[in-house]
Amino acid sequence: MSSEKVSVGVYLFKRLYELGVRGVHGVPGDFNLTALDLLPEAGLYWVGNCNELNAAYASDGYARIKGISALITTFGVGELSALAGVAGSFSEHVPVVHIVGIPHTSAQKNGLLLHHTLGNGDFKVFEKMSEHVSVAQTILDNPIKAASEIDRVLQACWIKARPVYIGLPTDMVFKELDAELLKTPLDLTIPPNNQDTEDEVVLEISQLIYNSKNTVILADACAIRHRVLDELHELIDKTRLPAFVSPMGKGAINEESTPFGGVYVGDASREDVRQRVDDAELILYIGGLQSDFNSGGFTYHISKKNTVEFHSDHIKIRYAEFPGIEMGSVLRKLLDTLDYSKIQEHPTADLSNTIPKRERESLSEVINHAWFWPRVGQWLREGDVVITETGTSSFGIFETRFPKDVTAISQVLWGSIGYSVGALQGAALACKESFPDRRVILFVGDGSLQLTVQEISTMIRHGLKPIIFVLNNGGYTIERIIHGMEANYNDIQPWNHTEILRLFGGSPENSSSYQVKTKSQVEDLFRDQTFSSAPKIQLVEVFMPWQDAPRALLKIGQITAAMNAKV
Amino acid sequence: MSSEKVSVGVYLFKRLYELGVRGVHGVPGDFNLTALDLLPEAGLYWVGNCNELNAAYASDGYARIKGISALITTFGVGELSALAGVAGSFSEHVPVVHIVGIPHTSAQKNGLLLHHTLGNGDFKVFEKMSEHVSVAQTILDNPIKAASEIDRVLQACWIKARPVYIGLPTDMVFKELDAELLKTPLDLTIPPNNQDTEDEVVLEISQLIYNSKNTVILADACAIRHRVLDELHELIDKTRLPAFVSPMGKGAINEESTPFGGVYVGDASREDVRQRVDDAELILYIGGLQSDFNSGGFTYHISKKNTVEFHSDHIKIRYAEFPGIEMGSVLRKLLDTLDYSKIQEHPTADLSNTIPKRERESLSEVINHAWFWPRVGQWLREGDVVITETGTSSFGIFETRFPKDVTAISQVLWGSIGYSVGALQGAALACKESFPDRRVILFVGDGSLQLTVQEISTMIRHGLKPIIFVLNNGGYTIERIIHGMEANYNDIQPWNHTEILRLFGGSPENSSSYQVKTKSQVEDLFRDQTFSSAPKIQLVEVFMPWQDAPRALLKIGQITAAMNAKV
Repeated sequence: MSSEKVSVGVYLFKRLYELGVRGVHGVPGDFNLTALDLLPEAGLYWVGNCNELNAAYASDGYARIKGISALITTFGVGELSALAGVAGSFSEHVPVVHIVGIPHTSAQKNGLLLHHTLGNGDFKVFEKMSEHVSVAQTILDNPIKAASEIDRVLQACWIKARPVYIGLPTDMVFKELDAELLKTPLDLTIPPNNQDTEDEVVLEISQLIYNSKNTVILADACAIRHRVLDELHELIDKTRLPAFVSPMGKGAINEESTPFGGVYVGDASREDVRQRVDDAELILYIGGLQSDFNSGGFTYHISKKNTVEFHSDHIKIRYAEFPGIEMGSVLRKLLDTLDYSKIQEHPTADLSNTIPKRERESLSEVINHAWFWPRVGQWLREGDVVITETGTSSFGIFETRFPKDVTAISQVLWGSIGYSVGALQGAALACKESFPDRRVILFVGDGSLQLTVQEISTMIRHGLKPIIFVLNNGGYTIERIIHGMEANYNDIQPWNHTEILRLFGGSPENSSSYQVKTKSQVEDLFRDQTFSSAPKIQLVEVFMPWQDAPRALLKIGQITAAMNAKV
Repeated sequence: MSSEKVSVGVYLFKRLYELGVRGVHGVPGDFNLTALDLLPEAGLYWVGNCNELNAAYASDGYARIKGISALITTFGVGELSALAGVAGSFSEHVPVVHIVGIPHTSAQKNGLLLHHTLGNGDFKVFEKMSEHVSVAQTILDNPIKAASEIDRVLQACWIKARPVYIGLPTDMVFKELDAELLKTPLDLTIPPNNQDTEDEVVLEISQLIYNSKNTVILADACAIRHRVLDELHELIDKTRLPAFVSPMGKGAINEESTPFGGVYVGDASREDVRQRVDDAELILYIGGLQSDFNSGGFTYHISKKNTVEFHSDHIKIRYAEFPGIEMGSVLRKLLDTLDYSKIQEHPTADLSNTIPKRERESLSEVINHAWFWPRVGQWLREGDVVITETGTSSFGIFETRFPKDVTAISQVLWGSIGYSVGALQGAALACKESFPDRRVILFVGDGSLQLTVQEISTMIRHGLKPIIFVLNNGGYTIERIIHGMEANYNDIQPWNHTEILRLFGGSPENSSSYQVKTKSQVEDLFRDQTFSSAPKIQLVEVFMPWQDAPRALLKIGQITAAMNAKV
């Protein structure tokens, strides 16, 4: 039997195409160049980031829109530069396929003292580092196993929703495989739950729901990452139970629907929100990830007694754990079997983007956080992608009630500053590919922007049209709140932000910069239909007082500082 | 006995001061903030870089001028972002003290799901990654051991001339130690060689030298890093033997002295240089580091039979190895015991910064590499610090004969593009502290610049006055030479480079930008005394054809491409 052949490189890239990847992020290096030649053959294209860390952040942002992404770096220098970004994807459950172009297998065998090595002949050391931040790894050093290895790690990436690592030696790129293998699609099904256990779990949860006079739903990060949003939305629609989100769960539910209760962050919540959740008789906690910043510095007061936790690999009902039981299937069965007439409703306060009374009545034109975030909420539109940087933005956004179908992107657990600029590039590219009508909007502080600013160049290069709000408050305000309010290490070099787009190749035709220093200027800008229609890349420098911060950040700052300082 | 106390933080910082550190590089993060408060108490100051990778590169550059440097990052996100830079220092034998602010010891013990973690309660994982790129590590979790641990790792850093890792938990910063401990200086002496072995080694080497009719000296990276330059210079002065440098050894010898023979890069050398070294009867190879780019793609033809290798931890005489014998002491004894009258001199060609005949006679005004690098050599001054990026610059500089006391900085082995911009910041700061009259000059390509451009902001912030030559040749020319001459992945987004200084806060008073598109414009600029006196930060955009490359890069590109492609 004669059979058609496909190279290892093309096989890998066609599998990525099958998963929905189109743009591939990364930086060229001499150990990955020949592989890059093969991208077009598989229907993929090269993004070409300014550096690898930015590329990793961009891959993370792209995956949060498209479901998965691919990142190509070069051996040693490139892959390690990306590591902090990939670690973030691991930490936050984002599936990124990290492909590393590595030296020729014979150079490795002979331990040659190549460039991009530690000079000690150890070619495994970088892979070892990446093992800590990936759920599957492979070095494609054997053409006979290459196809099954590629399939294995890609399936793990998708199903576990976390990064994987693929080492591709320069001599393996063109080795040939049987093209027939590509005719069998990747198996992305989640292994089924044990049916008896699942039935028991669903029954117990149903009884708890029927018996509770006051049930709330709390949606968190893993509801998004482990793809149970359809089930979650259906649950809210059918039960009409009040639904809350954690900071990392923001965007998981339709905040326009009546039962939206707000952002729950333990003691850093709005008081009415905190009370409503803490007082609930039963909490259906879906996709929980209780990190400090996600839980108000571990100040969740929801007791195990009152909680059902839905996870990707287990369910917890009050004190009982059911390992190996996956939430998607449980939620589906719950939806199919619940007797909705038995559910007792308990109303919750309606939240809207109302600017607090004190701010409404203030005569000051100074743009502060208490005024800004609800105002942003009024300006947002259905379908927007809203990215917030770890800092004042990621806390300020708690005060913004989203329109329908807004996707929120923030890195609350890993919290690497600078992330949002790279993530913006990836998310905007993903929207250009798949959802060209969605606006992609970034809120980033002047301090965080400095880490990764050059990725704005990549946005211009690809004709992306995000709206970038740079909150200019003279340094690292989040750090000031935690420690060193006036310390010089929280200062930064002041930049002329309106030069950014021009430096990176923006022209008046394809880019615009704005400065807003007063509330009136913000109002004018938000009323400008051309601006709001996002016709080109736009950067808005928003001047805010350096010591002003959102309510929740002030609260979490106190909690965090105390935790760090405690002797 | 009552005794004065000093905090763990201040103890550590005072030890750094003792080693010569003043400016401390890094990025603030909530796990290191309280430590930063203590820097001034020890006589140190905070640099405050734009991001951690840049900070690591800057620390590397600073250490290459001052002998050692310190880098402070925060747990997880910060330290991993710096890792590729620290790995470079490890690879290239540069002593950098990497201090990481880590969570409170009790948070670690309880496995809290803190921000900046992988969300799995594992607080050791980042330290484990750093173990691969450091020669000593410590977590300061015990006040009783803190002082001895600090001393141990700092001594290792200095003596082994490679990075070390110090984890500083937030609660340990203010724990008290006996201040008396600081009165005993750090012991930085290299353990003495076994005297019998050393005598034998010196005798054998002397005999080889006396018997050879044609001996050359070849100086490489570790001669600089392991601090034997005084011995090396004395050896050249006293023996008058022709002395060559490897790419990584450039700057190790006085290139103005008569016996300078050129840059030896195996087959990528100038033909007369290659022949002179390959034909030598005896080669004294000092501080060798035979990586591919440093050796012309492993095309050294110097046979073991003819070579004496001097290393920091062993000596090799032809086929015999003498482990544990350190070169500094051997060289010193050699200098003291050699009978210089018995050394047979053999002349070598005199190299100067002569522009090749073909270029001199060319009527073209296009700036090309063959013309540019010797011309740069004519313009350089005694004492300059010359930094070249991995790419056309690091290969072009082979054609530049340095004036006396030039320090060359390049990352030939690790070869991480973008390194040079960070390294420039560190080197320029080190010169500001210790050698304010030295000019600090960077040559970087437009592609590499994009990775780390924002560190120019830090230079402006600290009033540094480097001269930055941006070689604008439309992309990654070094990659084009290796593979994909016209491939779009070797293209970059074109930037308006003359906007850079303005964006980062430069004003006409404290900064100047230039564009040179013709040889005449270069001539005019080099003749401009104000420009050449480096009175402020200056950026020169040099336009060069995209496919032009230095001779040695063309040669190494062929060798590398063949090695990567070989099936």
